[in-house]
Amino acid sequence: MDAGLFTANNIWMMLATALVFFMHTGFAFLEIGLTRQKNTINILFKNIFIITGGLLLYYAFGFNLMYPGFEDGDMGILKFAGFGIAAPEGGMTPDYADGGYTWWTDFLFQGMFAATAATIVSGAVAERIKIGSFMIFTIIYVGLVYPIVGAWKWGGGFLDSWGFYDFAGSTLVHSVGGWAALVAVALLGSRIGKFGKDGKPKAIPGHSIPMATAGVLILWLGWFGFNGGSVLSADPELTSLVLVTTSLAAAAGGFGAMITSTILYKNLDLTMFLNGILGGLVGITAGADLMSPNEAVIIGLLAGIIIVLGVALVDKLKLDDPVGAIAVHLICGMWGTLAVGIFGSMAGIDQFMTQLYGVLIVGAFCVVTSGIILGILKATIGIRVSKEEEMEGLDIHEHGMDAYADFRMNQH
Amino acid sequence: MDAGLFTANNIWMMLATALVFFMHTGFAFLEIGLTRQKNTINILFKNIFIITGGLLLYYAFGFNLMYPGFEDGDMGILKFAGFGIAAPEGGMTPDYADGGYTWWTDFLFQGMFAATAATIVSGAVAERIKIGSFMIFTIIYVGLVYPIVGAWKWGGGFLDSWGFYDFAGSTLVHSVGGWAALVAVALLGSRIGKFGKDGKPKAIPGHSIPMATAGVLILWLGWFGFNGGSVLSADPELTSLVLVTTSLAAAAGGFGAMITSTILYKNLDLTMFLNGILGGLVGITAGADLMSPNEAVIIGLLAGIIIVLGVALVDKLKLDDPVGAIAVHLICGMWGTLAVGIFGSMAGIDQFMTQLYGVLIVGAFCVVTSGIILGILKATIGIRVSKEEEMEGLDIHEHGMDAYADFRMNQH
Amino acid sequence: MDAGLFTANNIWMMLATALVFFMHTGFAFLEIGLTRQKNTINILFKNIFIITGGLLLYYAFGFNLMYPGFEDGDMGILKFAGFGIAAPEGGMTPDYADGGYTWWTDFLFQGMFAATAATIVSGAVAERIKIGSFMIFTIIYVGLVYPIVGAWKWGGGFLDSWGFYDFAGSTLVHSVGGWAALVAVALLGSRIGKFGKDGKPKAIPGHSIPMATAGVLILWLGWFGFNGGSVLSADPELTSLVLVTTSLAAAAGGFGAMITSTILYKNLDLTMFLNGILGGLVGITAGADLMSPNEAVIIGLLAGIIIVLGVALVDKLKLDDPVGAIAVHLICGMWGTLAVGIFGSMAGIDQFMTQLYGVLIVGAFCVVTSGIILGILKATIGIRVSKEEEMEGLDIHEHGMDAYADFRMNQH
Repeated sequence: MDAGLFTANNIWMMLATALVFFMHTGFAFLEIGLTRQKNTINILFKNIFIITGGLLLYYAFGFNLMYPGFEDGDMGILKFAGFGIAAPEGGMTPDYADGGYTWWTDFLFQGMFAATAATIVSGAVAERIKIGSFMIFTIIYVGLVYPIVGAWKWGGGFLDSWGFYDFAGSTLVHSVGGWAALVAVALLGSRIGKFGKDGKPKAIPGHSIPMATAGVLILWLGWFGFNGGSVLSADPELTSLVLVTTSLAAAAGGFGAMITSTILYKNLDLTMFLNGILGGLVGITAGADLMSPNEAVIIGLLAGIIIVLGVALVDKLKLDDPVGAIAVHLICGMWGTLAVGIFGSMAGIDQFMTQLYGVLIVGAFCVVTSGIILGILKATIGIRVSKEEEMEGLDIHEHGMDAYADFRMNQH
Repeated sequence: MDAGLFTANNIWMMLATALVFFMHTGFAFLEIGLTRQKNTINILFKNIFIITGGLLLYYAFGFNLMYPGFEDGDMGILKFAGFGIAAPEGGMTPDYADGGYTWWTDFLFQGMFAATAATIVSGAVAERIKIGSFMIFTIIYVGLVYPIVGAWKWGGGFLDSWGFYDFAGSTLVHSVGGWAALVAVALLGSRIGKFGKDGKPKAIPGHSIPMATAGVLILWLGWFGFNGGSVLSADPELTSLVLVTTSLAAAAGGFGAMITSTILYKNLDLTMFLNGILGGLVGITAGADLMSPNEAVIIGLLAGIIIVLGVALVDKLKLDDPVGAIAVHLICGMWGTLAVGIFGSMAGIDQFMTQLYGVLIVGAFCVVTSGIILGILKATIGIRVSKEEEMEGLDIHEHGMDAYADFRMNQH
Repeated sequence: MDAGLFTANNIWMMLATALVFFMHTGFAFLEIGLTRQKNTINILFKNIFIITGGLLLYYAFGFNLMYPGFEDGDMGILKFAGFGIAAPEGGMTPDYADGGYTWWTDFLFQGMFAATAATIVSGAVAERIKIGSFMIFTIIYVGLVYPIVGAWKWGGGFLDSWGFYDFAGSTLVHSVGGWAALVAVALLGSRIGKFGKDGKPKAIPGHSIPMATAGVLILWLGWFGFNGGSVLSADPELTSLVLVTTSLAAAAGGFGAMITSTILYKNLDLTMFLNGILGGLVGITAGADLMSPNEAVIIGLLAGIIIVLGVALVDKLKLDDPVGAIAVHLICGMWGTLAVGIFGSMAGIDQFMTQLYGVLIVGAFCVVTSGIILGILKATIGIRVSKEEEMEGLDIHEHGMDAYADFRMNQH
C-alpha cells in the first residue's frame, strides 16, 4: 500500500480517537448539568476516574482480552494474551490492519471506547451512589464485562459468526452501559424526593442547562469520531456516508423528540430536544454505514419519539434516572440494533431475528454480571450513601469541596 | 488521482465540517454569555433548533437549490432538483470535485454552513423575540434565502459570472445573517431598559463572561474549518496560507479593538477584545486565500477598529443588538468583501466595484426578503413577547424551566 | 515525494496546530475555575492578550529569531531575519521540511506553542498582578526569551549540539513558563489571606470546579496536537506511539496523584487528580517518542506522585501559586526532561547529565531574565495591585465589569 494512503488512514483514526476522548468532556458536562450543584464534584471525580482508570485497565488487559485473535465461535474468555501490550510483528505497517491504522492507534481508539460504557452508568446512578462502590464496579465492568462482550462480535466471536451486526456499538457500547444503568438504578432506589407519596415523579431540575447543552453538542461532535472512526480506515465513500447518516439521525432525533414532547406536554422542552439528539445518535450507531440519508432520518426521527416515550416509561416504572441514560443508551441502543434488520442494505427478517438474539443475549449477560457485581457490593460495603449525605450533598461529604464556592445557592 | 491524495483531501474536508459544526457551540456560548440568565434556555433552544432544523432543511432541498448545476447567469431558483439528496453518478470518486471530497462530504460541509446565517440573527434578536416566529423565520431564511444567495456565487450564478469574489462567505454567510439581524432588530425594537428616557444606551451586562470568552475561542477554532475547508481540498500551500491569514487577522482584530476601545473609553474592555477577534475573522473570510500575512494583519487591525466604531454607531442609531452581531457580521462582512478589491492578489478598482455591487445586491435582497418575512409575522402572529414575559424572562414563560435552578439570582 | 503523503503530513500538522490553539481555552478554563469569581474577567483578559499578542509577536520577529538557520553551536541571537515573515524559496514544497509541512504551517504551529509559556505564568500570578505590568512582561518573555531558549535546541543551537533532548518541550516550553512563574510568585508575594499568622496555608477555593475540570480535559485533548504535532510529520508509527505514551502518562499521572493524595490526606481530592493528569502530560512531553507504553505509565505515575509532593513543597516555601503551575509545569517539566536519561531508547548516564545541564542552563537563563524584567517592573510601575483592589476584585477595578452579573455571590 502506498505510504500516502496508509498515513492518511492512520491520521483519520488518530483524530477519531481524539474526538472519542473529547466525548468524555461531553458526558461530564451533560451529567453535571442535569443534576444538582451539591453533587458536582462527585460526578466529575467519577468521570475523571473512568477515563483514567478505563484507559489503564484497557492497557493492562482489556485490549488483549477483547481482541484475542481466536477462532470462529470460540469465546476467548480464557485466552488472555497477558498483561501489558506488546506490539505484534508488523503492527506498525500496512500489513497490520489492511493499512487502516497502526497497532498503537488501534489500542488507543479502542481504549477510548472502553471507558464509555461505564460513563453511561455514571449518569444514571448520580447523586446517591457510594463512590467507592462505583469505582469497584467500574473497574470490573470496564476491565472485564465490556471487553468480553466486545470480543463476541468485534473480536470475531460467536455473535460475529452468527452474522450479528453492530457497526459502532448501539449494543456493544451503549446497551452494555444501559443495561448496567438499569440494574444499578433498580438496586439503588430513587433519590429522596423524586417520587411523591402518591407515587408521582417530581422534576429535580438540573443546575446548569448551558453545560448540559454544551455536553450534547460535544457528544455530537465526538460521534464524528465514534462512528467515523468505526470505518477503521478513511475510505472516502464510507466515512463520508457515515458522517452524513450520523448527523442527519442526530438532527432528526432532536426534531422528533421536540415535536413529540411539544404535542404531549405543550411545552418547548429543551432537555427532551437534547435527549432526542442523543437518541438519534445512539440509534444510528449500529447501522451508520448501511443506511441511506433518508433511512437515517427515519431511524433518527423514530429514536426521538422513542426517547420521549422511554423517559415516561422509566418514570412510570419508578426508576430514577437523573440524566435519561436508560432511555437514551439502552432503549435507543436496542432500537438502533434492531433497525439494522428493518432498514438499509442488510434488512430482512433473518437479520432482524439475529439482531434480536444479539440484543437479548448481550442484555442477559449484562444484567446478570452487573447484578452480581452490584448485588455483592450492596450486600457488603453498600452502594448507597446515607440519607444525611444525600441531603447535604456528596461533594462536602466525600470530597470536602464545593464546586462553586463563590456562588450563593438554593439548597434543595 | 492517487488514492492517498483523494483520501487525504476528503479527511480534511470532513474535519473542516466537524469544526464548522463545533462553531454552533461557540455561537451558543457567546449568545448566552452576553445576555441575561433569565433568557438562557430560550437562546439555547433557538440554537439547537437552528442546527437540527437547518441541517434537515438543507437535506430536504437547500443543497439542491444552492447547487443546481445551471448555466452561467441563470439564477436557478426554479430548477429544484427535488426533495432528498441522491448521489450523482461518480459522486464518491475523484471525478466528482477534482478529488477534493465526496458528494456526501460536500453536502455535510455545506449543510453546516447553512445554519450559520440564522444563528447570527439569533444573537441580535435575543431576549425579546417570540420563539414561534423566530422558528418560522429561520425555516424560510435558511431553507430559501440563504441557498438562493449562495447559488448566485457558489452555485455558479450571476455574481460568479461578474467576477465577484467571496472566498468563504464574508457576504454570502455573514452579511446574509447580518442584514436580517439589522432588519429584525429594527422591527422588534429595543429591550425594555436598554435606552433611558434621555435616549442614552445603558449597558445590560451579560450573565457569564467566561462562557462568552469560550464561545469566541471555539469560534476561532471553528474558523480553521470554515476558512480552511473553503479551499475545497487539502492543497498544502493554500490551506496553510488560509490558516495563517485567518489566525493573524483574528489576533490583529482583537488587538485593534482592544487598543481602540482603551483609547476611546479608558477601559480594558474584554467584550470589545472578543468582538474584535470575531471582526477580524469575518473580515478575512472573503479573501483569506488571496492575502499575504502582512495584508491579513492590516485587514484584521482595521476590522478591530471598525468593530468599536460600529458598536457605537449601532447604539447611536438606537438599535439594540445584545451581542454585537450587526457590527461583527454585517459591518465587518462588508469590510472584508470590499477588502478583496483593496488588498491581495485580486486588488484593483474594477474588482472593488464588483465587490461593492455584490455587497449592495445581496444587501438589497436580504433586506427585502427578511423584511417581508418578518413584516408578515409581525402583522399576524406577532414577533415580540409581552412586556410581562420580557421582564420575567422567556425561560419560565416559553419553556417552564430555569437554566440555573440551584443558583440565587439578581433579577434585572 | 508523493503528493498524497505530503498532503496527509501537512493536514496532520495543521490539525495539531488547531489542537494547540484549543489548549488556550483549556488554560483559561483551568485558571478561572481555580480562582475567585471577582478576578475572572482579569484572567480572561490576560489569556486573550497572550494568545493574540503572542501570535502577533511571533509573526513580527519570534519565528525568525527562533529558527535563524544558523550553524551548529552558534547562538543566533544576533541573526535576526528581519520583521515579518517571508516565505523562503520552496517553502510550500516537500523540499522545505522533508515533506512534513509547509512554511506557513510551520509558522502557525510554532506560533501557537510560543504563547503557551506566558499562559503558564498567568495562572501562578493570578488575582494580584497589575495587568499592565503583566502585559509588558508577556511581550518581552514571549517575544524574546522564549524564542532564544527555543533556538538553543529546536533552532539547532548549542543545546542541540550537545545532544540535549526535549521532544515537545518539557523544558523548552513548560519549564520556561514554570521558572518565570516561580520568580514572579516570589517577587509578588502571596494573596491576602493565603497564609495565616501562624504561617499555615489556607485553601482559597476556586469558584468553578467544572470549568477547571473541562480545562484539564481540553488540555489533554490539546496535547494530542502538542506532542503529536511535534513529530513534525504524520509518520504513522511515531505519531501513534506518541499519542499512546501521552495518554497513558496522563492517565497514570492522574491515578498516581489521586492515590497519593488519598493516602496522605484521606480525601478524594479532585483538584489533585486533575493536576496529576497535567503532571503526567508535562512529564511525558520531553520523551514521548522514546518511551514504550510501560515506561510512559511509570513516568506518568511518578509525575503524579511528584505533583502531590510538589504542591506541598510550594506551600511549605510560602509561595502562593493559585493553580499549581509551579508543581505542574516547572517540577514535572524538570522530571520529564531528566526521565529521558532514565527511561526509553536514549537512557544512560551521559544522556542524564546532558539533560541535567540543559535543565540547569535553561533554568538559570529564565530565572535571570524573568528576574530582571519583573524586577525592573516592580521597581518602576509596580507589579502588584493595591490592597483595596485585591480585596474588591480586579474585575471591577481594572475592567469595570462583572463576570457573572446575574448571580449572587459570597464575597471573600
